[in-house]
Amino acid sequence: MTTTTNPETISVILRRRSVRNYSDKPVDDEVILQLLRAAMSAPAADRQFPWKFIVIRDKEMLHYLASGLPSAEMLSEAAAAIVVCAAPQDAFAGRVEYAVMACSCASENILLAAEALGLGAVWTAIYPNPESIEFVRYELGMPASIIPFNIIPIGYPICEAPVTDRYDPDIIHWEEW
Amino acid sequence: MTTTTNPETISVILRRRSVRNYSDKPVDDEVILQLLRAAMSAPAADRQFPWKFIVIRDKEMLHYLASGLPSAEMLSEAAAAIVVCAAPQDAFAGRVEYAVMACSCASENILLAAEALGLGAVWTAIYPNPESIEFVRYELGMPASIIPFNIIPIGYPICEAPVTDRYDPDIIHWEEW
Repeated sequence: MTTTTNPETISVILRRRSVRNYSDKPVDDEVILQLLRAAMSAPAADRQFPWKFIVIRDKEMLHYLASGLPSAEMLSEAAAAIVVCAAPQDAFAGRVEYAVMACSCASENILLAAEALGLGAVWTAIYPNPESIEFVRYELGMPASIIPFNIIPIGYPICEAPVTDRYDPDIIHWEEW
Repeated sequence: MTTTTNPETISVILRRRSVRNYSDKPVDDEVILQLLRAAMSAPAADRQFPWKFIVIRDKEMLHYLASGLPSAEMLSEAAAAIVVCAAPQDAFAGRVEYAVMACSCASENILLAAEALGLGAVWTAIYPNPESIEFVRYELGMPASIIPFNIIPIGYPICEAPVTDRYDPDIIHWEEW
């Protein structure tokens, strides 16, 4: 059994940060599909995958979504965005909690894959805000059974995001609380 | 602006799978701390980090937890386990949903870092099962304000997990649902 280690991956995980400013360099569809392939490799309870994705490249729609969502102004600068959608009916036991956990892991995979590919991205919350969910669901023509979970703008960063060490030994307990 | 790509990281994301069988090779505390450093680099809304961690290496406790949790029998084989704990009061707006999303991302980082370091791991659910939450909280002496979220057994794998391609182009929508 080989146990090759991949220090590069640890480095990508540690330096991933929210990137909110993007150059006007376009992002190829092939690159977007690499991010989605990463998303679909996330874990989900009982291997029931409760996720769907909407890719938005239309500049007018990106501006419009930016105007209707809190703290999402960076969407209007992005080359594209991925809306991660939760499908609770496809989740283990049909429960929204399992859909939320799986979609969170899929989203983290997108963010890490973006960092690995030299892109910038940031998790912009839709869930659990009811107004944001209703707005995005309506604008993108989504059925009521699907929860627009977050929207992740994607673009090439115009500067390096500062990386601070978030390690905190005080929140680690040993053997018991 | 450099845009170095890290193909190795994409490969780790794509090949990460649940590993449920471990050799008896011990896992150094230093390695566990690398996993926890990765966990603490996950995103959380408004940079409010609603997570805590309990590291369990005591074999007797690992066996006991294995006996009291559904589908957690692999805990008794593991060299160690990490209990990811959610602290909703520390999350954005004090909401459990934000704690669940952040703890999910932290857990995915642990699973990916384990894969990168040649370890095997698997997400064993505690949340949202009330009996499992109560059982772990009581056994590990956790306060009522903290939710034991999942338990991730860690060990060196005894075989390669088979990797199937989970990519499904049919769940990708373009520009709208």
